[in-house]
Amino acid sequence: MRVLFAADGWEDWAPALREACPEIELLRQAAPDSVDAILYAPGGDGCDFAAYPSARLVQSLWAGVEKIAPDPALTQPLARMVDPGLTQGMVEYCVGWVMRLHLGMDRYAQDGVWRNEMAPKLAASRRVTVLGAGALGGAVAIALAGLGFDVTTWSQSGRGVGDVPALGGSELGAALARAEILITLLPHTDRTAGLIGADALAAMPEGAALINPGRGVLIEEEALLSALDSGHLRHAVLDVFRTEPLPPDHRFWLHPRVTVTPHIAAATRAETAAPVVAENLRRVQRGETPLFLVDRGKGY
Amino acid sequence: MRVLFAADGWEDWAPALREACPEIELLRQAAPDSVDAILYAPGGDGCDFAAYPSARLVQSLWAGVEKIAPDPALTQPLARMVDPGLTQGMVEYCVGWVMRLHLGMDRYAQDGVWRNEMAPKLAASRRVTVLGAGALGGAVAIALAGLGFDVTTWSQSGRGVGDVPALGGSELGAALARAEILITLLPHTDRTAGLIGADALAAMPEGAALINPGRGVLIEEEALLSALDSGHLRHAVLDVFRTEPLPPDHRFWLHPRVTVTPHIAAATRAETAAPVVAENLRRVQRGETPLFLVDRGKGY
Repeated sequence: MRVLFAADGWEDWAPALREACPEIELLRQAAPDSVDAILYAPGGDGCDFAAYPSARLVQSLWAGVEKIAPDPALTQPLARMVDPGLTQGMVEYCVGWVMRLHLGMDRYAQDGVWRNEMAPKLAASRRVTVLGAGALGGAVAIALAGLGFDVTTWSQSGRGVGDVPALGGSELGAALARAEILITLLPHTDRTAGLIGADALAAMPEGAALINPGRGVLIEEEALLSALDSGHLRHAVLDVFRTEPLPPDHRFWLHPRVTVTPHIAAATRAETAAPVVAENLRRVQRGETPLFLVDRGKGY
Repeated sequence: MRVLFAADGWEDWAPALREACPEIELLRQAAPDSVDAILYAPGGDGCDFAAYPSARLVQSLWAGVEKIAPDPALTQPLARMVDPGLTQGMVEYCVGWVMRLHLGMDRYAQDGVWRNEMAPKLAASRRVTVLGAGALGGAVAIALAGLGFDVTTWSQSGRGVGDVPALGGSELGAALARAEILITLLPHTDRTAGLIGADALAAMPEGAALINPGRGVLIEEEALLSALDSGHLRHAVLDVFRTEPLPPDHRFWLHPRVTVTPHIAAATRAETAAPVVAENLRRVQRGETPLFLVDRGKGY
């Protein structure tokens, strides 16, 4: 089986892929119509999918496929990456920032003042809403519920995960109204772009916090800055942006109620992702349906 | 049943206790030999236990009983507080600070620099040791294991909790040597005082971090400061101290590798503790053995 590697990070990926699927021939360049599958991530030299009609799978190495799915040259089946390490990394990122906001950890200034205040309320009294109930949102919701938080998910379909209460479709307003902490883990689609604008932010309770580890386009930046300026939102933790890297003069960097992280919540780790690639390549080899195929009508 | 309340915080406790056990007569003052039980916490006016020989129980409202257990005037059975809210609060405190250290959250300075570094390693690769495997240490260990951390407990007896690997007795060195993050949740006894001194700190791996939400006397302060000064330890999060409130000129306040929190990890919450008090008072009333009796030989 001949597999074209069309992505950055060859140094990390090659050894992990060779260990996970030693039977494949992994190529960095290949003649048109000579490969059985393509491993792809945006960046680098890109890939003209039309040149590889024999490929039976394009396996994205990234969770997000919004830069691939609309490509008219792509006629092959497209699978998104569901890296168990990525999901776990996302869970850890979200748990960490939720705890920091929940406990009010930043109030303990190292200034010699013993702030003998009330104990923070317990997680059972903290309402968290996760927008998105897929592989990432679902795992985050389950982890937070396991820590005792009062979690609800919202997704377009309203499907639930585990025992976590689920809202759907037209119940977005209710999902936002309860969100002392809101986590946005929706895919980028026509419906979700700009979803968190002035109206959505106004629907959130006074003093709420936002964590966006999902997609930059979910957020209307000016509306978010206004909500932070007025104090309606107490804090935003942002990992993804409409322009990345976030320009050094962007207001998000200097706003006292914003924490910027450099798109690290959903890092794909080659060690944990390579076995997933291997499984999908073997499915193609055996003529079976690959895992995690993208519905290009929905865009994810 | 006549119950003497000998503690601070009457405004919080009285309504919660009246709701949890409306049948008792709750008194702030009582004639000697006129009460059936005493609810006690250090501070305030103290209590001369010898004056109440009819009391069949002294119920501590705090988890730590090292200031009560040695009192020679105390001849009544002593129960420590195991507040389910306290345990949950401790779990939340420890999870929050472990995540902050694990993820290296403080490296994301808001300075316009997009630090596109390697993703932090996953929890499965992060070795955490919890010293103590009782109500608090055990719950913290289970919560961290549930998040995927590579957790081991150590206690004098070596008893385990759940599926978490347990070390005991003479294996303290091994427990420390693996501790990228060490959490000290041992009770204060003759054996544990000063346990974390120069030798124990030297046994920890280079770049390890310490979280002490247990007892201030577990730590030798000068030895800890030396280990932080040299960089052998990268950070210490300290909630309890030999002197509290921590004096404003104490080096812990200004050390760049120390975070001080004001004894908030193990706050007893009246709402969740009052039902525990009620259960113990009813056990006394029925002539049954109270829960959580202190072994005064061991001191906890």
